[in-house]
Amino acid sequence: MADTRQDDVATAMREHVLLPAQEMARLGTATQPVLTHAEGIYVHAADGRRLIDGPAGMWCAQVGYGRKEIVDAIAHQAMALPYASPWYMATSPAARLAEKIATLTPGDLNRVFFTTGGSTAVDSALRFSEFYNNVLGRPEKKRIIVRFDGYHGSTALTAACTGRTGNWPNFDIRQDRISFLSSPNPRHAGNRTQEAFLDDLVKEFEDRIADLGPETIAAFLAEPILASGGVIIPPKGYHARFKEVCERHDILYISDEVVTGFGRCGEWFASEKVFGVVPDIITFAKGVTSGYVPLGGLAISDKVMARISGENAKGSWFTNGYTYTNHPVSCAAALANIELMEREGVVEHAREISGYFADALASLLDLPGVADTRAVGLVGCVQCLLDPTRADGNDDDKAFTRKIDERCFELGLIVRPLGDLCVISPPLIITRAQIDDIVAILRQAISEVGAAHGLTSKEAAVG
Amino acid sequence: MADTRQDDVATAMREHVLLPAQEMARLGTATQPVLTHAEGIYVHAADGRRLIDGPAGMWCAQVGYGRKEIVDAIAHQAMALPYASPWYMATSPAARLAEKIATLTPGDLNRVFFTTGGSTAVDSALRFSEFYNNVLGRPEKKRIIVRFDGYHGSTALTAACTGRTGNWPNFDIRQDRISFLSSPNPRHAGNRTQEAFLDDLVKEFEDRIADLGPETIAAFLAEPILASGGVIIPPKGYHARFKEVCERHDILYISDEVVTGFGRCGEWFASEKVFGVVPDIITFAKGVTSGYVPLGGLAISDKVMARISGENAKGSWFTNGYTYTNHPVSCAAALANIELMEREGVVEHAREISGYFADALASLLDLPGVADTRAVGLVGCVQCLLDPTRADGNDDDKAFTRKIDERCFELGLIVRPLGDLCVISPPLIITRAQIDDIVAILRQAISEVGAAHGLTSKEAAVG
Ligand SMILES: Cc1ncc(COP(=O)(O)O)c(C=O)c1O
Ligand SMILES: Cc1ncc(COP(=O)(O)O)c(C=O)c1O
Repeated sequence: MADTRQDDVATAMREHVLLPAQEMARLGTATQPVLTHAEGIYVHAADGRRLIDGPAGMWCAQVGYGRKEIVDAIAHQAMALPYASPWYMATSPAARLAEKIATLTPGDLNRVFFTTGGSTAVDSALRFSEFYNNVLGRPEKKRIIVRFDGYHGSTALTAACTGRTGNWPNFDIRQDRISFLSSPNPRHAGNRTQEAFLDDLVKEFEDRIADLGPETIAAFLAEPILASGGVIIPPKGYHARFKEVCERHDILYISDEVVTGFGRCGEWFASEKVFGVVPDIITFAKGVTSGYVPLGGLAISDKVMARISGENAKGSWFTNGYTYTNHPVSCAAALANIELMEREGVVEHAREISGYFADALASLLDLPGVADTRAVGLVGCVQCLLDPTRADGNDDDKAFTRKIDERCFELGLIVRPLGDLCVISPPLIITRAQIDDIVAILRQAISEVGAAHGLTSKEAAVG
Repeated sequence: MADTRQDDVATAMREHVLLPAQEMARLGTATQPVLTHAEGIYVHAADGRRLIDGPAGMWCAQVGYGRKEIVDAIAHQAMALPYASPWYMATSPAARLAEKIATLTPGDLNRVFFTTGGSTAVDSALRFSEFYNNVLGRPEKKRIIVRFDGYHGSTALTAACTGRTGNWPNFDIRQDRISFLSSPNPRHAGNRTQEAFLDDLVKEFEDRIADLGPETIAAFLAEPILASGGVIIPPKGYHARFKEVCERHDILYISDEVVTGFGRCGEWFASEKVFGVVPDIITFAKGVTSGYVPLGGLAISDKVMARISGENAKGSWFTNGYTYTNHPVSCAAALANIELMEREGVVEHAREISGYFADALASLLDLPGVADTRAVGLVGCVQCLLDPTRADGNDDDKAFTRKIDERCFELGLIVRPLGDLCVISPPLIITRAQIDDIVAILRQAISEVGAAHGLTSKEAAVG
């Protein structure tokens, strides 16, 4: 039975767990809601309430909860062979999963390295790019170009690549080899057209390369959509233009698809099908197992591998790896998850329903306090600003949005509070009716909290 | 059914998987043996052979394979609630596991942060020490002192702390803030007594602190036993002397118990019970779930936490965390594993049988080619040197040991080949009879390979 003694659980959490993003002043006193069980797109709290899981856990629960096929695959593998050392032993789940993922990735990205999650996937991709340039005899080609508002993980290196500056205080983020470009946030265009904004972004990239010297730059690391940084969808054509610049300077284009992969954008991977680029490396995690067990990884192009393997290997060994690389249970869970997604057409469903989802969120634009809504596939957000002409929210807007999130929670919807955004990236199995439920709750919460803030209706404001 | 199509699996691995420590010249051609299933201390290869799992996977399979209690706990949790965001939601498995681990750790190490494995555990411990000194207003106190032959993981930061220099080529390991001390390998004492060797190691540490300035040093990071670096057991008293030096200079003592924790040394944690120190932070992984699913973490002392929390927090947030922090399924697996270990007395068993294990390995010392055997708890090794007077093996010794490993494999024993060592760290449930089986196979393999190398018996050499 689930442990429903909410108080005990909350007490043990308070006394013994250090949380991600722990507010240190409230260590030992702050309490999180306790979840006990879940099915489909719903989670249940220990106080008996059922909630729609708006963020799909943490952008990961693609097929939703209670999927027996995945649980059976996990249990079967855990009983048969829960572990084998990836240094010395091969197992079917890792082999089959790599083979399968190679069919889902674009281009010739056919070589897969497995890790334990998104951070280790990106960390290994960056260590690979370091290894690659050393083997190629270009030890100075090591810089990594990233963007403000990007999020790439929580290892020392991937945190240093993360341009969410709110995460920086009290950590020593700055590294000489990492260089930040502007966020491609369309709301930052100001008076410029989106085309002019894009031109400026590309120019900034080219200028940076010229400044630093292309011979010092190893990789451009970028999420197709800057997810945790604020569901930022770059201007149309951004990815292809950046890829072209990378190619000209022999810079690896690493597409961080930890969020966008495995159907989130209505395709198995978003890089090519949604954004028109075939990267050199794709990193993935989250949706690969629908979050049932930890797994991450990267897929590398054969062309890249060929330059440093076989006759070109120069006696090198890729001495990178985790105890839980190729984990049989994690890989078996991913295989079952992918099989389920294929059988039920989950990716096609996400693609088909994405227009409905975008329109549903956009229907909230009539509400005062709603400055913007945006969506690609089934990742979207509602940007809540007390003054909708601001490009980014200030502390008042964030407090406003937090109140909306709290009200949604009371009304039965988990929203991922992210600054001035209500982020909605539900399980991909969501129905039209369930999207309606989400939007109805958002409408009620935003209206009520807006009214409490003295916001009048947009018509009234205009009239 | 297990996928026993060995050739298919091997082909898919060759074509699609990048392996840890991949030899790049043999990418796409080298083949690993395929494992299909396992039970107890035995694993089965696709060719039908049953092998004793000498290294317990990768020093992790404490309770062995096929343990239904763990599988049931995993399946139950995966069905009930496979995932919840650790940023926003509490769950019973994370709360209970942290509470439980706090009872197993020494001293006041009562605050637990969960990660996805050993590397992320150490990476987070080091990021915590960075955060700690920034909040304490000592931004210059950031250096990390480590040892040659230490192994701490494969993220960029933990790899940079790893003193296995064989892992360094083609990676940019050097970081200004990381400083390496000598390996505490007793075989490096040369003409010195072990006491004099220890005095020199302590003096090197104190000199280094004086050179760099104690105000620049955040942490000493050390495995109790340098496991992957060669099953190196430091001279008696080493840990307590180093801890005393750390205390004098307000340097965090981080004990990396990824290998030594969870019964491997005959205690839940080795730091205090085996080596006499209560660290400030302990990192763990591997044995915490017996390898059934990925999990790692760190336990931090209340005294350390108190200095930067509550009234001392100075508005800080610990913005470190993984999607799979507090993973419900991983934590449920760990709880079931620990419960099983308690019910069956696995840690006590490991302690009781450790003398038998050490004696059994030592019984091989009569063989020519066996230079040393060593063991603590159930981690041990047989050092194979063609010339036993050498402190460390050269390439010939490594080739010799590799042949012994290969012969053991043919005879039904997996040995972890580690340079000139046959490493044996079996599942903790091993019986005396099974230890006898291991040693019998080692004896036969070493004798045969030794004879092929023209080694004569020690008596003959002496006589
Ligand atoms: C784009 C992206 N990359 C990497 C990561 C890090 O993944 P993980 O938290 O699994 O380590 C995340 C996590 O949210 C992410 O969104
Ligand atoms: C002492 C120690 N620390 C850290 C690690 C890294 O753990 P993982 O491989 O799970 O990332 C290992 C792995 O062998 C280890 O032995």
